[in-house]
Amino acid sequence: MADTAVPNLTKLSSNKSFEGELTKYKFKSAALGGLDAQFNLFLPKTASTGKVPVLIYLAGLTCTEDNGAQKGGFLKEAATAGIALLFPDTSPRGAGVEGENEDWDFGTGAGFYLNATNPKYSVHYNMLTHVTLELPQIIEAAGIPIDFNRQSIFGHSMGGHGALTLYLASRTKQYRSASAFSPIANPTQCPWGEKAFKGYLQGGIEEAKKAGYDATELIKQRGKDEPVHILVDYGTGDDFYKKDQLLPENFLKAARDAGHDEFQVRVRSHADYDHSYFFISTFASDHVHFHANFLKA
Amino acid sequence: MADTAVPNLTKLSSNKSFEGELTKYKFKSAALGGLDAQFNLFLPKTASTGKVPVLIYLAGLTCTEDNGAQKGGFLKEAATAGIALLFPDTSPRGAGVEGENEDWDFGTGAGFYLNATNPKYSVHYNMLTHVTLELPQIIEAAGIPIDFNRQSIFGHSMGGHGALTLYLASRTKQYRSASAFSPIANPTQCPWGEKAFKGYLQGGIEEAKKAGYDATELIKQRGKDEPVHILVDYGTGDDFYKKDQLLPENFLKAARDAGHDEFQVRVRSHADYDHSYFFISTFASDHVHFHANFLKA
Repeated sequence: MADTAVPNLTKLSSNKSFEGELTKYKFKSAALGGLDAQFNLFLPKTASTGKVPVLIYLAGLTCTEDNGAQKGGFLKEAATAGIALLFPDTSPRGAGVEGENEDWDFGTGAGFYLNATNPKYSVHYNMLTHVTLELPQIIEAAGIPIDFNRQSIFGHSMGGHGALTLYLASRTKQYRSASAFSPIANPTQCPWGEKAFKGYLQGGIEEAKKAGYDATELIKQRGKDEPVHILVDYGTGDDFYKKDQLLPENFLKAARDAGHDEFQVRVRSHADYDHSYFFISTFASDHVHFHANFLKA
Repeated sequence: MADTAVPNLTKLSSNKSFEGELTKYKFKSAALGGLDAQFNLFLPKTASTGKVPVLIYLAGLTCTEDNGAQKGGFLKEAATAGIALLFPDTSPRGAGVEGENEDWDFGTGAGFYLNATNPKYSVHYNMLTHVTLELPQIIEAAGIPIDFNRQSIFGHSMGGHGALTLYLASRTKQYRSASAFSPIANPTQCPWGEKAFKGYLQGGIEEAKKAGYDATELIKQRGKDEPVHILVDYGTGDDFYKKDQLLPENFLKAARDAGHDEFQVRVRSHADYDHSYFFISTFASDHVHFHANFLKA
């Protein structure tokens, strides 16, 4: 009876890598309306002798829990630094909501790391709760040696939006630092964000601003007396950057206007790099090292 | 008129990575019977100021030119060392030979880096010529700054078989060094190799031995007065190793019997690692560094 509250965590596969272990798990997710959810978890070798801090990677549109684990190039530095990596999926799978599989930038593969309030989506599309509450609880309940008092978060594109907003909006300061590759940094001002917010939220874009789903809006409200630790990288050869889907300059300007200097918010532009994992992997070790500063402090 | 002999090399995509450039090309391959063939080529930044040496990566069963480029973790070290990486495909695509798409370990995605002599396959299944002759010619003719006097070769599984055999059988000493992850090291003695040789070669396994398609047979014939530079890594948690598809011990024993010491042929066993790219990426930098010793000498 003791563990009836512990959902059944099923191990789907396991691969040794860099002296640690990458494991894919499946469980019935309450946050996602009872659907099966999957995630990948990399534990460094040091986890065999004690709890380790964790860095959560949120992937972008169309991705799953696999993209960052397979192509990000994060494992080597995480293994060396003794940091676990948690790779959630990007949306519920198989919710059966009409139209959820019609577009690549909305619905399946595009959960936007929010909790939906539109009744059509609110039963299943709750990636905010899934990432911030459910996964830590599930992992802790399973006895996996992660110290959730030491969490940081990063992500790519839609996942960069997720990382920045979950970090900045957390009242409990759940994450020690946040970083992003090519984030959707001001989603209330770009087509991807507008579509997602109008679809998932009853109150649309206004609700998104109030709920803390726009990193640029959030940083405006964060005084410099409340320090932040943020790193953002993007490439000038990124087609989505060129099409104004990312708007990292808006985030940077809002951060500077609010008094956050380059030690608090660093936004780096990289000539000719694009939106792909070839860009991400190039700067992967920078990001892991950035978070290690705070996770191992 | 001058370049009528230069086949049309079409650039399909290009991604900046580690200050260099990964480009996917397509061309009509004479070696593969006139079919379109694709490959990926990574050029380090140093290629902008002069010709660079090249390391060729041969992928395994079911793979394409993308697996090594996306998941291998080779680009960072190659960029730092100033070495180009060439990623060929693993077979012709769309040959239209009856049955070529029925099995995952024969036909499409499973060219075994040989030249077929069975008439059914001999028009298209000539990956040996494709890799050793055609790709260097095509790339050189296109004016891409690679110094093909400095080539080395490595690969995974079927591609490890390819790397070892192309290296050892080359009469012109085309490659300076060879390495392999989990290679099919004695294919005339394992089910994968037997199936491939009986299918592609009129003379079956006997023809395979004579043609130089078995690394263990080749190293037996290579006297210690003719030095070799070979590195092999495999994992003891590899299911194909356990099922005797790889047989690295046979290769190691043959090498030692022929007088090649551990400075010439190094075979390393890694506890619990499996057959996946998570294993490959763990030892990726070791392999690039190994080849850099010879490519930059």
